[in-house]
Order: sequence, then C-alpha cells, then structure tokens
Amino acid sequence: MHSSLKPFVGLVLVAGIAGSAYAQSPFAKPQDAIQYRQSALFVMGQQFGRIAAVVKGKRPFDKAEVARSAAIVKEMSTLPWEGFVAGTDKGKTHAKPNIWTEAAKFKSRQEKMEQEAAKLAEVAKGGDLDAIKTQFGATGKACKACHDDFRE
Amino acid sequence: MHSSLKPFVGLVLVAGIAGSAYAQSPFAKPQDAIQYRQSALFVMGQQFGRIAAVVKGKRPFDKAEVARSAAIVKEMSTLPWEGFVAGTDKGKTHAKPNIWTEAAKFKSRQEKMEQEAAKLAEVAKGGDLDAIKTQFGATGKACKACHDDFRE
Repeated sequence: MHSSLKPFVGLVLVAGIAGSAYAQSPFAKPQDAIQYRQSALFVMGQQFGRIAAVVKGKRPFDKAEVARSAAIVKEMSTLPWEGFVAGTDKGKTHAKPNIWTEAAKFKSRQEKMEQEAAKLAEVAKGGDLDAIKTQFGATGKACKACHDDFRE
Repeated sequence: MHSSLKPFVGLVLVAGIAGSAYAQSPFAKPQDAIQYRQSALFVMGQQFGRIAAVVKGKRPFDKAEVARSAAIVKEMSTLPWEGFVAGTDKGKTHAKPNIWTEAAKFKSRQEKMEQEAAKLAEVAKGGDLDAIKTQFGATGKACKACHDDFRE
C-alpha cells in the first residue's frame, strides 16, 4: 500500500468501527440515547424527590402517594441503562468516559440501584414510614455511589 | 383605599392566585413539570418508534423486543398528565393553552391513549405481527388525535 494512503485507511476504519458499534443501538442518533437515559433519570429523580420531601418532613405522608412514587422509581430504574451506548460520552451529558472502560463496575452499580428501588417499592406498599425512611436511605446511597464514580 | 395603591393590590392578588394554584402541584417549579411530561413522552416516543420501525419493515421483528417496548409505552402512557399543571403553557413547551380551557376533552384524549397503549402491550405479548400492526395503528391514531388538538 502506498504509505501516503495509510492515514486515510486508518480514519475509515475508525469511522467504520464507530458506525457499526452505534448501528447495534436502537437509537436513531447518539443524542436520542442521551436524552432517553436523561429522561428516564429525570422522571425517577422527580418521584424520588417527592419521597425525599416526605422523609424529611417537608411534605405530609400520604401512603398511597408514596407507594405510587416508589413504584414509578422502581419502573424507571430499569430504563436508563440502554441509553449508555458506546460513544455517547460527548454532547449534553454528564456521563464520564469510565462508564465504558469500567463497564462491569458500572453494571454492578446499576443492578444495586435497581435492587434497592425494587425494595423501596415493596416497603412503600406496606406504608410503614420508618421502614420507608430506612429503605429510602439505602436507595439514595445506591444512586450516589453511581453518581460519585460515573457522573461529572 | 388610596387609588394609587390599586394596581399593586391587583398584582399581589394575581401573584397570590397563581402561587396557590401552583402550590398544589408536587413539582418544585413550572419547568420541572414541563420537563417531567416531556421526559415521559420522550421515553414513550422512542419505544413507540422502535415498534413503528418493525411495523414498517425497517427493523426485524423480535417478539420479546416488541413486547418490551410496548410494555414501556403502556407504563409511560400513564405518567405525563400530572405534568400539565395550570400555568405551564409558557416556556420550553409545545403545550397549547386549550389543554386547560378544554380540560375534559384533553382528559378523554389521555384516557383513549392509555387504553390503546394498554391494548398494544397486551397484543404485543401475543406476538402476532398482524395484530400488532393493527393495534399499533390504533395507538398512533390516539397519539395524533391529542397532538392535533393540544400540541403546537
């Protein structure tokens, strides 16, 4: 191969790999993947925030309301992860690149969060405020553990 | 009352009414309500779009994948409505003011959409692509009916 062509071949290969990695994604474009995960996390955060207000005594404790919020948190906790498509650490995102280089650790953080959120939904159904407070704390800790390591 | 104070009293009253109407909302600020409904609708739209791609033959039919997307569409279809808090037709939104002046009509559109989405999730579980196509059409029609009347 003529040596002057080498840089171009390299570029094409890189573009090809990035393109095919992204092609496996069900999102039409990287920004859709970013917006998808942010949307799921926003809905989750809003409902989690309502429970936080109850836990902190800033909002009256309504058993049905808290159970509903916790059920939504549980449901949403399963969604964001497919939005972390390779190559979407650029753009309007707080995602740190180690999400992709420490994938196993990131996955274990997700799973922990899903487990804690599922427990919170279960406990909230019971309507015992003290139990809700305890499990709210455990769930918040799981959110924070992931944010500390993987969120800018 | 001194007549020069009247305009100020009027302003305070308007602010007071708007404040108390908004205080009933569980959202900390109007933009949160807007972002909440947009987030739920975005997640729904992305998953609905995947089913659309299958229905149009642009994406291979994977029964489990379509059933999962339809289940998420169903789940999300119940969420956006609480985000349509009075006074949130301003800002980054396509919401038309008649959402609040034609509230009964808006509610019937929501309910229709939730019903169709629930049916789609049920049909998708069955895995019959023709049945999915039919119910996908009915669900899309319910989305459009609401957008036509209430979305800028």
